[in-house]
Amino acid sequence: MNSMLKQEQALSDALLKPKSVALVGISDDVSKTAGRPLHFLRNAGYKGTVYCVNPRRETVQGEKAYPSLSELPEVPEHVYVLTGADLALKAVEECGKLGVPVVTLIASGFSEAGSEGIERENKLRELKSKYQTRILGPSSLGLVNLHEDLFLTANAAFAEPGLLKGNIFCASHSGSMIGSLTSRGRNHHTGFYGLVSVGGEVDLSVGEICLATLDNPDIQGYMLFLESMRHADKLREFAIKAAELNRPIVVFKLGRSQVAADLAVSHTGSMAGEDAVAEAFFKDCGIARVETLDGFLNAIPLLSKVAAQQANKKKINVGVLTTTGGGAAMVVDQLGIRNVSVVSPTEDTIAKLNAKGVEVHAGGIIDLTLAGTKYEVMKAALEVLEDAPEFDLVLVASGSSARYHPDLAVKPIVDSIATYKKPLVSFLVPDAPEALKQLKQAGVPAFQSPEACADVINAAFSRCQPTAIPEISKHEFENTVTLDEDSAYKLLQPLGIQNAPYQVLTVHDTVDRLTIEYPVVVKVLHDQISHKTEAGGVILNVKNASELSTAIAQIKQNVEKYSPELTVEKVLVQSMVKGLGEVLIGFKRDKDVGPIVMLAAGGVLTELYQDSVMRLAPITLESAYEMISEVKGLKALDGFRGKPKGDLKAIAETVVAFSQLALSKEYYIEEAEMNPLIVNPQGQGVTAVDALVHIAKEG
Amino acid sequence: MNSMLKQEQALSDALLKPKSVALVGISDDVSKTAGRPLHFLRNAGYKGTVYCVNPRRETVQGEKAYPSLSELPEVPEHVYVLTGADLALKAVEECGKLGVPVVTLIASGFSEAGSEGIERENKLRELKSKYQTRILGPSSLGLVNLHEDLFLTANAAFAEPGLLKGNIFCASHSGSMIGSLTSRGRNHHTGFYGLVSVGGEVDLSVGEICLATLDNPDIQGYMLFLESMRHADKLREFAIKAAELNRPIVVFKLGRSQVAADLAVSHTGSMAGEDAVAEAFFKDCGIARVETLDGFLNAIPLLSKVAAQQANKKKINVGVLTTTGGGAAMVVDQLGIRNVSVVSPTEDTIAKLNAKGVEVHAGGIIDLTLAGTKYEVMKAALEVLEDAPEFDLVLVASGSSARYHPDLAVKPIVDSIATYKKPLVSFLVPDAPEALKQLKQAGVPAFQSPEACADVINAAFSRCQPTAIPEISKHEFENTVTLDEDSAYKLLQPLGIQNAPYQVLTVHDTVDRLTIEYPVVVKVLHDQISHKTEAGGVILNVKNASELSTAIAQIKQNVEKYSPELTVEKVLVQSMVKGLGEVLIGFKRDKDVGPIVMLAAGGVLTELYQDSVMRLAPITLESAYEMISEVKGLKALDGFRGKPKGDLKAIAETVVAFSQLALSKEYYIEEAEMNPLIVNPQGQGVTAVDALVHIAKEG
Repeated sequence: MNSMLKQEQALSDALLKPKSVALVGISDDVSKTAGRPLHFLRNAGYKGTVYCVNPRRETVQGEKAYPSLSELPEVPEHVYVLTGADLALKAVEECGKLGVPVVTLIASGFSEAGSEGIERENKLRELKSKYQTRILGPSSLGLVNLHEDLFLTANAAFAEPGLLKGNIFCASHSGSMIGSLTSRGRNHHTGFYGLVSVGGEVDLSVGEICLATLDNPDIQGYMLFLESMRHADKLREFAIKAAELNRPIVVFKLGRSQVAADLAVSHTGSMAGEDAVAEAFFKDCGIARVETLDGFLNAIPLLSKVAAQQANKKKINVGVLTTTGGGAAMVVDQLGIRNVSVVSPTEDTIAKLNAKGVEVHAGGIIDLTLAGTKYEVMKAALEVLEDAPEFDLVLVASGSSARYHPDLAVKPIVDSIATYKKPLVSFLVPDAPEALKQLKQAGVPAFQSPEACADVINAAFSRCQPTAIPEISKHEFENTVTLDEDSAYKLLQPLGIQNAPYQVLTVHDTVDRLTIEYPVVVKVLHDQISHKTEAGGVILNVKNASELSTAIAQIKQNVEKYSPELTVEKVLVQSMVKGLGEVLIGFKRDKDVGPIVMLAAGGVLTELYQDSVMRLAPITLESAYEMISEVKGLKALDGFRGKPKGDLKAIAETVVAFSQLALSKEYYIEEAEMNPLIVNPQGQGVTAVDALVHIAKEG
Repeated sequence: MNSMLKQEQALSDALLKPKSVALVGISDDVSKTAGRPLHFLRNAGYKGTVYCVNPRRETVQGEKAYPSLSELPEVPEHVYVLTGADLALKAVEECGKLGVPVVTLIASGFSEAGSEGIERENKLRELKSKYQTRILGPSSLGLVNLHEDLFLTANAAFAEPGLLKGNIFCASHSGSMIGSLTSRGRNHHTGFYGLVSVGGEVDLSVGEICLATLDNPDIQGYMLFLESMRHADKLREFAIKAAELNRPIVVFKLGRSQVAADLAVSHTGSMAGEDAVAEAFFKDCGIARVETLDGFLNAIPLLSKVAAQQANKKKINVGVLTTTGGGAAMVVDQLGIRNVSVVSPTEDTIAKLNAKGVEVHAGGIIDLTLAGTKYEVMKAALEVLEDAPEFDLVLVASGSSARYHPDLAVKPIVDSIATYKKPLVSFLVPDAPEALKQLKQAGVPAFQSPEACADVINAAFSRCQPTAIPEISKHEFENTVTLDEDSAYKLLQPLGIQNAPYQVLTVHDTVDRLTIEYPVVVKVLHDQISHKTEAGGVILNVKNASELSTAIAQIKQNVEKYSPELTVEKVLVQSMVKGLGEVLIGFKRDKDVGPIVMLAAGGVLTELYQDSVMRLAPITLESAYEMISEVKGLKALDGFRGKPKGDLKAIAETVVAFSQLALSKEYYIEEAEMNPLIVNPQGQGVTAVDALVHIAKEG
């Protein structure tokens, strides 16, 4: 075991299997938040040692109270500090000095609480650097390991007896949600190994905590409830390792509607709304993102059956078997909304069903009607569908019989699941608690909500197989400089990106120096002007030398009027290029998730329709083609309605080339954009007619 | 009471309160579908008389069996026929002769079952015309009135004791769903007055059945589970009357994903996908359409609080009060996705809260944190928000305390609801069955699913106040004729619709007859050619007389090659018009919902983005402006990014004018379209540059 693994093991033990815990500031009053953890631990029968620390009392809830951590008979493995922020800082320092492995803080009042809070947070970060002690929180409601009866939490939900144990580990930015997920999970027969409220992530983050749990064989899947993308690097590292171990991850991330809110779309930065960046990140990391809460609580069983390798199929085909057409149609509809196809059985499949005595007719859904409520009929149908090559997944929608006769309705599914060769999913049309229980206990992905069912099927197959993280330098630069258009083209040319021919003229040059052909466009060339058109710095369709002279003079006058502090010395004169259409390709280093590339159809309508797609950089050619297929407007360049085809191959290659900016060792590029990139007819490539590059500047 | 009302009353009684029922073909075996209704009726203690009709037995389930309906001691008020299709036809005839008010048929094997079935259906329609007896079905699983213990159904779900009574009436195209909705409803404390499986609607339709129940004061809301828009006229009539009585209607309609599937968009007909037409219909009828099943089951309480008059606000502002930020954010997110705004409290509101001892800080959500789990704090906060003018609706998201201390967490809501001056909605973050029960029993719109909560809030406010149905002639014509472009313009001009100047020339005319200015566009003029461009019948940008001669000859040659059976005699020569943008306005009589008008932004991208909106015709100016605001691409004509504004007023007026086609007494217009209609700068109107009209032709 190397030292990194050892560290993770120690961290995992201190978090989830500590032999001793200390509760600092524990209250005698069990009805108070600060009194709960002791009560919960005792109530649950936690086997480790619990020390109470409270300098103002001899005893707490009938147990001996120590005046300070230093006076405990041993160094506890995990300390939960239940005091306010200022005392908490003192406790952390004490933990550091004593060599406590992990300290968890419930206190709020840090960076979210104004200048005083920021000062406290700085102090906390200092302590973090100074000592080996790892910090969970601040604002952490604690953590729970149901298998060890470790209820180290102040969340009121854990007073409840008989919580359902399982093999899912849940990490949440929201402390209250760990309680609500536990109570809701029970209705879905979703049991947890443990749950952690990560709080403010000053030190330990969602990703790092989950990483530390990966060698725990009792944990088979992860549920992440996220409010932000903080520490995405650790999350990505965790996701890659989890995929190697075939441990599925499902995420419910708040902030989905941000995209709708952030309508301002002037450049890559804002077009790449925060949530869209997160979406791209999850997809590339092989993390299934669901949009419904019921889907979140029910995703792991299906994700466990669909390896990431199988996932990310362009198009998956679902076969639907039912005894109730109307009920099944609810899921089919929800799948359709998410562009998941429900396909009809082939004639061959129908013949095989009929041969086994299962009567079905051609049509989208395989409706067995009332006849399907017999065990043998349903079992036989499942056997035929298992080998039907037209289906990637089989969905069974059970009607009333699921409520009244689970033995007929769902037993065939329960009996098939262990060896079934493709993912098999159950949807229960009526409220059918007993059937649900039997299905869940057998490990069948089973759903009561049609929306959640379709949500999870879609999420399971939308994942990519995550790839290793490339070596990307992570500088933190104070400033960036903007390159002028000429320098930007020169930086992009070595990547194989073509631009329209141009020539730089000074405002004093005679226009007969121009060697490119008319008509031309004339643009101001100045690294301080990024919005050239608004500054009056662009004149199109200049047809001859005399117009060119006039244009240059006009641009100098416009721009110097617009920005009186600047002097225009140079213009860039470029061939007018007209292709079949245009796209925007952008590159940005997101502060959380790292370098991303965006592809969008060009023009004003595209802004209105928010028609863009993102991926983590660098990007493979295969992913680039996928991106193209996901931008609706680009169908106009793919022979739509008999229009000529654009050079989609060249777009894909350019996306790949542009994404290499992430890896450049020569420059540290913060942000770059080609808007527009002109798309020529098939075989004739793409041509940049504008380029913007921001480079980080040292010092 | 006039005779129409009397008829409805009689129908309502025969359906929901019959004094006697007869079961034709009732089986002795209670486990068989045909044996169930008697068992259910006896089990439930139905007070009316039940007659068994079975010519092959003396007794059925221990009761006397009559050989035929004619031999019963009285004419039963309602007959349920449990036989196969052929015997069912005989039974219907017998009912007709005896003057039975209503007969319900469980049999399938009618129009859905090939030529034999169609023959049976024709026979059934004949019987319907011949006799006064009303028919429910075929393929009806029957109906249930929980208040009368009338379990006249073969749906297995109604064997269950203790079903929850309530004041909702449910009509469903799917027979199995009436059972599933009952079992699911119980979990949500949603009780039913009655439910009906309408089956194939050969006679009685969803709309007519619900209409008949409107004078029943025990029914306070309607849930409709629809698979199609059959008999939409009756549905609309019902919706209008229900709105007058303030009885809310919620619909769950299958087929939502059809729009995605039907991507073919060549004209109004197919662009107006079936589901989009239904959506427009529901909106205009004041019917709330939900997209989640849980929303469907929980919609009525909120709909009852939001009168249709209040609804249809362009933008509603929701105030969110919570004790758990993370949990509340789930609903806020779902509201955001649906473009419902969550707004912050004003400084004034915060001051009032603080003055009552409720500590809150500025921010989107009013987070009371743990302090909010006190009764007085929550009650005081609710009182302040009740009078805060910035909120149209108050949403309370309760955390763990809802599960453990409903008296603290939800009692303040329960105590406020009866007199609260604005809609008040509860969302429970944990699983909290006791809190849910208390809330529901008090009539509070309460939700356990964040998606359903947002879905219902959005649906409640998206309804319009329905307006009276205009007098629209309803001919059924065998054929339609297409007008040529010249005739189409002439038909539209009297409505005030402008077209670009044009002149009709014969191919033999000398081109110097042209009196309009060059450049012009030349188009073939022939009522048999609707796709002029594809036929090579359009030549743009013709600059002079010589080009015009060539163009006319070329068009004649192209079109006659394309359609050898035609002879081109005329062309339409039109001014080239260039505006700021273009739209498509279409008119169509949908076979189910009647005349509709569609507005879409023009051009190929718009097809790709499916960016269109529909309303029932005729349309008011206010609705036309709403339509404009709902087409995303039209923002490009509303000053987006500093672009010049188009004449949106003229678009709105043209939509209104075009919608008058529905009322024309002179012509019966089947379908019409202006594509494109050129949009000029503000104040300069709109100009049609193409028009297509299909008119119904008698005989």
